[in-house]
Amino acid sequence: MQSFTTLSKLFEERFDKRHFPQEPHNLYDASQYILKIGGKRVRPVCVLMGNELFDEIDPDAYEVATAIELFHNFSLIHDDIMDKAPLRRGMETVHTKYGDSTALLAGDVMLVAAYDHLNKIKPDHLQRIISLFNKTAREVCEGQQLDMDFEQKENVSFEDYERMITLKTSVLLAASLQMGAIIGGAGSGNQQHLYAFGEKLGIAFQVQDDYLDAFGDPEKFGKQPGGDIIVNKKTFLMIHALDVASEVQKKILMELLKLVPVAEIDKVDKVNKVLQIFRDCKVDEWAQALKDKYYADAMKHLDEIAVLSARKKELEVLAKYLLQRDK
Amino acid sequence: MQSFTTLSKLFEERFDKRHFPQEPHNLYDASQYILKIGGKRVRPVCVLMGNELFDEIDPDAYEVATAIELFHNFSLIHDDIMDKAPLRRGMETVHTKYGDSTALLAGDVMLVAAYDHLNKIKPDHLQRIISLFNKTAREVCEGQQLDMDFEQKENVSFEDYERMITLKTSVLLAASLQMGAIIGGAGSGNQQHLYAFGEKLGIAFQVQDDYLDAFGDPEKFGKQPGGDIIVNKKTFLMIHALDVASEVQKKILMELLKLVPVAEIDKVDKVNKVLQIFRDCKVDEWAQALKDKYYADAMKHLDEIAVLSARKKELEVLAKYLLQRDK
Repeated sequence: MQSFTTLSKLFEERFDKRHFPQEPHNLYDASQYILKIGGKRVRPVCVLMGNELFDEIDPDAYEVATAIELFHNFSLIHDDIMDKAPLRRGMETVHTKYGDSTALLAGDVMLVAAYDHLNKIKPDHLQRIISLFNKTAREVCEGQQLDMDFEQKENVSFEDYERMITLKTSVLLAASLQMGAIIGGAGSGNQQHLYAFGEKLGIAFQVQDDYLDAFGDPEKFGKQPGGDIIVNKKTFLMIHALDVASEVQKKILMELLKLVPVAEIDKVDKVNKVLQIFRDCKVDEWAQALKDKYYADAMKHLDEIAVLSARKKELEVLAKYLLQRDK
Repeated sequence: MQSFTTLSKLFEERFDKRHFPQEPHNLYDASQYILKIGGKRVRPVCVLMGNELFDEIDPDAYEVATAIELFHNFSLIHDDIMDKAPLRRGMETVHTKYGDSTALLAGDVMLVAAYDHLNKIKPDHLQRIISLFNKTAREVCEGQQLDMDFEQKENVSFEDYERMITLKTSVLLAASLQMGAIIGGAGSGNQQHLYAFGEKLGIAFQVQDDYLDAFGDPEKFGKQPGGDIIVNKKTFLMIHALDVASEVQKKILMELLKLVPVAEIDKVDKVNKVLQIFRDCKVDEWAQALKDKYYADAMKHLDEIAVLSARKKELEVLAKYLLQRDK
């Protein structure tokens, strides 16, 4: 299997073009705009890796990879509208730049464009791929809805949060790998293990993301920690802290969760107080152990896939890279 | 061919069920809600009629009909968000009842559900049907964008408006008929004539809609005329009036178009003044003639379809019913 970097370059060569007609330019410029913001293209490359784990890359894999990246960007546009997010990767979000209505439509046509690419693949895998794509699309929407529902809830269990995160962020990674495997001719057992590998890897990545937002080194992380804490975002860390905190700590946390600080000094104060409780409850150690658990689960599933170990190497490299592991 | 009423009943029997999972209920209740608001189901029945024009109804036609109706409702949910419409068919719109974010997602999962039904049809027509569905979906989004663009423009030409209306409302009717024809095994010439029949019929219907909003009998129409005039909506009538009005009339119209009356008496006054200019410019007669022209165009294409005339009867009945013609 080729490396993530090589496959990423191969994908980008094909993907880096205008994907939409010129007119109506108000609509299609908005769709094209988000694709230019970029990203690591992890999901489409996972389609290619899933394919290459079992066979040489089939041209169909590029169509599916493109569909997956378009779907991902569709969901980003619509999520940003719902979250009223002003920025993405330091650039204006689509709705900030083009208005809510055009952004909504720009997402819609992006989703349709994804199906255009799926519809180009050979008939033998078409229905299976569309079926998995649709299931995944539904789940991503369900995850976003649950995320919004949880914002209104005071108590969210670890299990509910894990389920929401799985739907919102993990299933697309998992399905990308599985679609590649389908195109590569993998049997259903191998497909399922590869899916589970992606799913667990995705959750491990989210635990790390939550951890770094709280405890990350600002030098390496590129931003001040505590962003999630300031906006009262539910995270693996906060949910666990509320689970294990003493009555006194819990009361303090609940009070802090009512604050929406505006001044910089109040933000820093809130972050420091929450982090202190996190540390007192050993949430940091717990999160690292949780990430390790999901990582180990992912690796177990990768082990179970019945192909030569040598073929799996680049997936291991990818997992380690995503989870910032040295060994 | 069976009558519209019979086919409508056959479709409704299959369609009248819950189309979505129970959970997350916030999301799926919103999707299900709009389906309960109902409608005449003209588009899905057109799929069945398009099929039956050429052959007995294939079970695939019901899947495509369902997909078309789900797509139509997806576009209604998203359009209502963009238009900030409080009511649809006298009921609260989805975003009014469930909030903008959930309505946005409820539309998204509706579109995905449409593809689920398309994906159930036999492989021999699958790619052709999805391709036409995607083209149509894109065009409907383009129509909505152009409609929003035109709101900001002072001068919209007849040709541009006709193109926008065709995309926004006609192509879905036309594509519904053609998809039925594809399933019925029609040749491409017949498919194209049936598509054109639907397209012209759709525009004729829109001209009538614009006409009735201005000149309709309140007794029959069920509401006071002038709704479009009050909110300065661009219509076939207004665009033509601006085209043919004298300099003086045009100046008055432009002044009236700047008004957004709130009090009932001001609304009535504005409507009466605009209608007077419409009558002075013979916009009413022009609109009736325009509707007749599109109707005649539609019928010409129906004539050209190479099947026994007797088979076409119910499509003629449908056209006359939609366009409220006695003969």
